[in-house]
Amino acid sequence: MIVLKQKQINIVLVEPKGTINLGSVARLCENFGVNELRLVSPKCDPNDSEATRMAVRGQKILKQSTIYSSLLEAISDCPRVVATCGRKDHGEIPINSPKEALQWAISSKVDVPIAIIFGREDRGLTNQELLLANKVLTLQTSPSYPSLNLSHSVAIVLHELNRFNGKESKSTISSSHNPALPIQIDDFIEDAKELLLEIEFLLDHTSQARMNKLKMLLQRAEVRSEEIQLMRGVIRQARWALNKKDSTNP
Amino acid sequence: MIVLKQKQINIVLVEPKGTINLGSVARLCENFGVNELRLVSPKCDPNDSEATRMAVRGQKILKQSTIYSSLLEAISDCPRVVATCGRKDHGEIPINSPKEALQWAISSKVDVPIAIIFGREDRGLTNQELLLANKVLTLQTSPSYPSLNLSHSVAIVLHELNRFNGKESKSTISSSHNPALPIQIDDFIEDAKELLLEIEFLLDHTSQARMNKLKMLLQRAEVRSEEIQLMRGVIRQARWALNKKDSTNP
Repeated sequence: MIVLKQKQINIVLVEPKGTINLGSVARLCENFGVNELRLVSPKCDPNDSEATRMAVRGQKILKQSTIYSSLLEAISDCPRVVATCGRKDHGEIPINSPKEALQWAISSKVDVPIAIIFGREDRGLTNQELLLANKVLTLQTSPSYPSLNLSHSVAIVLHELNRFNGKESKSTISSSHNPALPIQIDDFIEDAKELLLEIEFLLDHTSQARMNKLKMLLQRAEVRSEEIQLMRGVIRQARWALNKKDSTNP
Repeated sequence: MIVLKQKQINIVLVEPKGTINLGSVARLCENFGVNELRLVSPKCDPNDSEATRMAVRGQKILKQSTIYSSLLEAISDCPRVVATCGRKDHGEIPINSPKEALQWAISSKVDVPIAIIFGREDRGLTNQELLLANKVLTLQTSPSYPSLNLSHSVAIVLHELNRFNGKESKSTISSSHNPALPIQIDDFIEDAKELLLEIEFLLDHTSQARMNKLKMLLQRAEVRSEEIQLMRGVIRQARWALNKKDSTNP
């Protein structure tokens, strides 16, 4: 499950200014098993109490974050570098979808360190900085207000990376339960039909169509054996209640 | 590009406590063109200055957020409801991947309001609350620290929704049928419970657990409005039959 740990993922923040953001990103690193948080000329203190509070269980990765004086230095050991861009004035720098950029980042056969760079809260990364990366990605947001908060961008990118790294959790529907046997379902339907005729909910000529509707519902639900038993219990008890009325009121 | 605007997306927060989170979620709503922010019994003030500051250009959606006293009420007009779950103790409630749940949410042919529910910062949504949704999704994170910050969960889910909304959305089970409204299902369950207590199938202390099993079955089946009506017809008729026995045997 904890797939990002297998890759050496480094999150690089360039000149982060907000302590709430910084702490939040540290928490996200822990949420997604990121190896290292790297800070390029941070404009706030990683030891600030607000950062620590926001980091929650990411405090260790926050305390161990490394500070660099230049972006180039911060990514010097990473053969695969992806930068994020929210600006529209990136000129001719090619922009990739998150899928293209992140799948490429983790597609290396050998386990190499990967860097994912996020820019300043107010103005992102410069074109010069974008050009240090192998690939640039942009997140699709509303054109009327495209600017995502820094930590939200990190959240989305790490979740995407996690997804491409191997698995999208499959539905748990019916994985651990065996659906009821066809004969069980059929017996239940017959039993229910009999009762519903008895209480005059069904008429002979419409009973088939109505019971088919019920069957379809059970089929869609992949009804389980114990659920059939539960419902047969209801029928049994309803019969008992109907008969009791008869016998106690002779 | 601004795809979410075409769908009526409502973000529902249950008992949010943190003003940073609340403001951040309002900003995200604006980032992804969400229609409405709904708050169920919020534990903090949407007009708090920190919330306003974090909302940035999402201040309008924050000010216009609607407050509800119950979750059921907050989603009463939404035929498609997805809840998020980070807990592992959700029992047998089926869990979907974000893809399965969100593609389903937006796969309706007609434009119906969609609700996406997020729980409390510290303990998420209760199982009872999860059972009000048509589908429950979980975000995959590191098993050693799975707990995402509330606004980060919202960021990831809205980005995913945006992603699926851009493409052809493959239907899961029943894109052409709208499931019953949560309130319809809830009313039916209450009605059925009453009858089952009356015929002594249920005992007071076990009724909740047994009715939950039935709810899960209906949730898995994506039960439809007309099916709920059919089953309520059964209950009505059963009551009539029970009473008839009384009155014809004085």
